[in-house]
Amino acid sequence: MENEHLVYYFNSNDKPSPEYLSKVRKRFKQWVLDICNKPFDQEWLDYQNEIGLRHTYKKGKTDNVKNTPSIVNYRYMVAFIYPITATIKPFLAKKGHSQEDIDKMHNAWFKAVVLSDILWTKSYIKEGKF
Amino acid sequence: MENEHLVYYFNSNDKPSPEYLSKVRKRFKQWVLDICNKPFDQEWLDYQNEIGLRHTYKKGKTDNVKNTPSIVNYRYMVAFIYPITATIKPFLAKKGHSQEDIDKMHNAWFKAVVLSDILWTKSYIKEGKF
Repeated sequence: MENEHLVYYFNSNDKPSPEYLSKVRKRFKQWVLDICNKPFDQEWLDYQNEIGLRHTYKKGKTDNVKNTPSIVNYRYMVAFIYPITATIKPFLAKKGHSQEDIDKMHNAWFKAVVLSDILWTKSYIKEGKF
Repeated sequence: MENEHLVYYFNSNDKPSPEYLSKVRKRFKQWVLDICNKPFDQEWLDYQNEIGLRHTYKKGKTDNVKNTPSIVNYRYMVAFIYPITATIKPFLAKKGHSQEDIDKMHNAWFKAVVLSDILWTKSYIKEGKF
């Protein structure tokens, strides 16, 4: 299995839980849709905060997953910025937009991912250092 | 002045210190050269750790700067990933390499920046969460 060190976080009782993974995927999709469609208002901000907590203090609680790792380690939260930015480009490029528009969309996506990630990782940061 | 919220971190006694900024710029250049030329070995890793400390617990100590902010806040450390990745591309593009090679160099740069940033921010992270 690829990326076993990441699949680990979807474990329940020492093995990957397809149910858990499937529920997380749905929420992941919602995060993408929200980035593209919603204003970055208080509601959006509150939900990014909730996403952060679901990777730290509330991990597994939303889906009531038994014996899952209690946190997604910080290092993977920031590392996430690379693949999610690099792999989006082909999707942006396949609807016939100009190269300039594709680059602009890609930059906007990149910035929104970095911003999301900063907000998600707030709950990992020592008091007063955010 | 542009980006006053960032220039603030180079303050000494409530105003920007050109000497401090100039010394930091030299070290910034060294970080770029190291990313491009040095193996990512223990020495490199130790220096990234030192860079992190110089933004938190040892900020201003290296240059003996008086009354400078005691930390560069975490949110700016991660936000840094965007401009430093987006602005490098024209430099990579001006030496006559193929578009494919430019994209590969850009991806390698992007990954190295994210990796550096993860290492630098270690000293901001709560015990056990890194």
